Amino acid sequence: MFTSIFSSQYLNQQRSFQNLIALKQPFSYVSISEAWNRISGAAISSLESEIVTIREAHNRILAKEVTSPISIPADDLTHYDGYAIRSVDTKNAHVQPVRLRVVDKAYPSQPPKVTIGDGEACYVTTGSALPRGSDTVLAVEMAARMEGDLVQVRSRIDPGEHVIPAGSDIKKGEAVISAGRTLRPQDIMVLDLLKIETVQVYKKPFVAIVSVGDELVDKAPTHSLLLSHWVQLSGGIPIDSGVAPDHVDQIKDRVEAALTRADVVITIGGCSMGEKDLVGDVIDSVGKPGLVFHGIKIKPGRVSGFGVAMNKPIVMLPGFIHSTIVGFEFLVLPLLQKMRRLHPEGAWHIITAKLAEKIQIRSFIPFKNATFVRLQLEPEGLVAYPLLGGSSFFGIVSKADGVVVGEENRTSIDKGETVSVHILPGV
Amino acid sequence: MFTSIFSSQYLNQQRSFQNLIALKQPFSYVSISEAWNRISGAAISSLESEIVTIREAHNRILAKEVTSPISIPADDLTHYDGYAIRSVDTKNAHVQPVRLRVVDKAYPSQPPKVTIGDGEACYVTTGSALPRGSDTVLAVEMAARMEGDLVQVRSRIDPGEHVIPAGSDIKKGEAVISAGRTLRPQDIMVLDLLKIETVQVYKKPFVAIVSVGDELVDKAPTHSLLLSHWVQLSGGIPIDSGVAPDHVDQIKDRVEAALTRADVVITIGGCSMGEKDLVGDVIDSVGKPGLVFHGIKIKPGRVSGFGVAMNKPIVMLPGFIHSTIVGFEFLVLPLLQKMRRLHPEGAWHIITAKLAEKIQIRSFIPFKNATFVRLQLEPEGLVAYPLLGGSSFFGIVSKADGVVVGEENRTSIDKGETVSVHILPGV
Repeated sequence: MFTSIFSSQYLNQQRSFQNLIALKQPFSYVSISEAWNRISGAAISSLESEIVTIREAHNRILAKEVTSPISIPADDLTHYDGYAIRSVDTKNAHVQPVRLRVVDKAYPSQPPKVTIGDGEACYVTTGSALPRGSDTVLAVEMAARMEGDLVQVRSRIDPGEHVIPAGSDIKKGEAVISAGRTLRPQDIMVLDLLKIETVQVYKKPFVAIVSVGDELVDKAPTHSLLLSHWVQLSGGIPIDSGVAPDHVDQIKDRVEAALTRADVVITIGGCSMGEKDLVGDVIDSVGKPGLVFHGIKIKPGRVSGFGVAMNKPIVMLPGFIHSTIVGFEFLVLPLLQKMRRLHPEGAWHIITAKLAEKIQIRSFIPFKNATFVRLQLEPEGLVAYPLLGGSSFFGIVSKADGVVVGEENRTSIDKGETVSVHILPGV
Repeated sequence: MFTSIFSSQYLNQQRSFQNLIALKQPFSYVSISEAWNRISGAAISSLESEIVTIREAHNRILAKEVTSPISIPADDLTHYDGYAIRSVDTKNAHVQPVRLRVVDKAYPSQPPKVTIGDGEACYVTTGSALPRGSDTVLAVEMAARMEGDLVQVRSRIDPGEHVIPAGSDIKKGEAVISAGRTLRPQDIMVLDLLKIETVQVYKKPFVAIVSVGDELVDKAPTHSLLLSHWVQLSGGIPIDSGVAPDHVDQIKDRVEAALTRADVVITIGGCSMGEKDLVGDVIDSVGKPGLVFHGIKIKPGRVSGFGVAMNKPIVMLPGFIHSTIVGFEFLVLPLLQKMRRLHPEGAWHIITAKLAEKIQIRSFIPFKNATFVRLQLEPEGLVAYPLLGGSSFFGIVSKADGVVVGEENRTSIDKGETVSVHILPGV
């Protein structure tokens, strides 16, 4: 550690840093699955539910099962053009042709007005309701038109022919969409059909993003812009909580303010072991239990951490962009899923691909290893091209479609090997 | 065909329907691939480009390659704590230790102010810029602190040690994002980093949806609500062009109005062979070439069609909801991709699953067959459960995650068979 040779002011600052470092928890890495156990076991407030109109309900999580207030179809319908009749009238038609009198006509837009009695029929077109009294449909080609308003039938017609019974699609009182379902466009269509105007859904989590670093003050927080988009794609509402310089009090102010506004706080930067890496201490000081772990067994991203204060989760992400992304993928995405009451692993879109070039793993061998890759569909299938370069390189992030995750204790992943690729959000 | 027995007005209407039917093109089914050839060959206006801010650019298609106006990093940086020095000063340090005078310090937030001369050094921390004159970094643990402002080095330091050269991430003038790329969150982050505020993207297609059917007048157009969501998810801007009753002039008014406002027109309903199925004729009458095909070899959805007028595509979808969806999946989705200059087949999200129950195909055997399925992840992998029932059933649509497509001339798809599932948009 360098001791300043320039000014007493700097010397003082250095000393206070060193005191802080002395107080730090030992930096002990946990496996991803242990990290997940600790996050799952943490006392985090559940999100409440709220009522929204169905037009706002897309991608929201249903908090309360929806049952149908009506039957679909509301009436028995015909799915064929023909005549709605009483089947009993045709009981002997195969022996003795029967003539029926056409007393009404019906269209989907024009319901029948009559009740069908003995020897009567109603012309119906596909989608029309059947008139009261009728129980079957005589197909138009089975009916001979006679003079006047008569039709003749020469065969016995069973009850229910060409009939779509009322409630056969959706029954009144039937559970249509179960609680916990992410509402898709087709669910919203069905809600609209059932004349349901509002639904009870879980609130979206507000996710505050605090950027930390002297070098970011007065600059657009680039990382935070990326995470904001990703939070939104993951069903959260991002809050830009600005930039704190590398100073304990100022970081603490930002994190405390973020905790009052948001359901989740993400910090970016200031969490490795340098003199300016103060975020872990801040998390420990803003509430209990404070820092839960600092360090995960994956590289890049290994100095990520997690804490809880005010029953709200705080995820600490490193500042190098590759590390930020890996920390987000492995800690924030599943956390957001959990908070939305979805299966945490559902956060990850994993596909398999063939590796185009060998990946050499040179450090942190006992850890998982994440390598950014570009995917390309080739005749033999999906191929993953490793993008190599420093973990601060943005050009790689822009080119990347996903991250290949190598398991613990591997020193290389061979060319041609089938690998799992975590697809980056929004790709 | 039924001739009304009720009123002369109805008789007249029937006659005009029959004339129209007589004029219809023969209803000849084309294969999906032939449908695609015809759509690809159609004279359709290209979408223009527009300038948008990067905050609005997510998911837009870049119309013009972006080159970097700056280098990232802008300066040579150190990725280690130590001293920026001139490598030449250490040429003989392994023989004779060298003492260097520390003349400045630099942090990422505080660039160096000096130029390093003979025998000088500047303290630098990870991420700091190197001062002018220096070309390498002496790691802090390789330097012995001496009294005063001196450090001593006992080994030769090569040029470029611990240095991230300017432009090594992104070079000024380098093509960063190529034209035709769908902009992802990480692209927007990189644009922000490069201080690029606006980009040239293709306009989103306006997609007008005209619902047709007497029975829909004065009702909420449920199908159109679904397609609006799907159009939006597919990068278009939906326009609800309302409902036309089953009357040629009124359908024509709606379609013509839609053609003036939108880049694509979708009609729903009124396109099978019944007396009220007038949309094909309307499309033939609103411009040249008019109806290009009517009928595709897939069931449900077989009475879908396609036409062009005013150099704009018109897709004619059937009114039964399963048919509407299949027509949308096979005609509209790839059309929207094509208009957005993306690969048409990229519209389809296809996965494989094991079929849980046999699917029996009973009609239109020479056609492709589409069966709605629910997907479930089971220990042996993804399993597709067929959802059987009438093609008007909404309950099935709400339960469905995708559509299993059976190839031509199959009479059944066996339990346990591996099938391709088209995932429904938004699932």
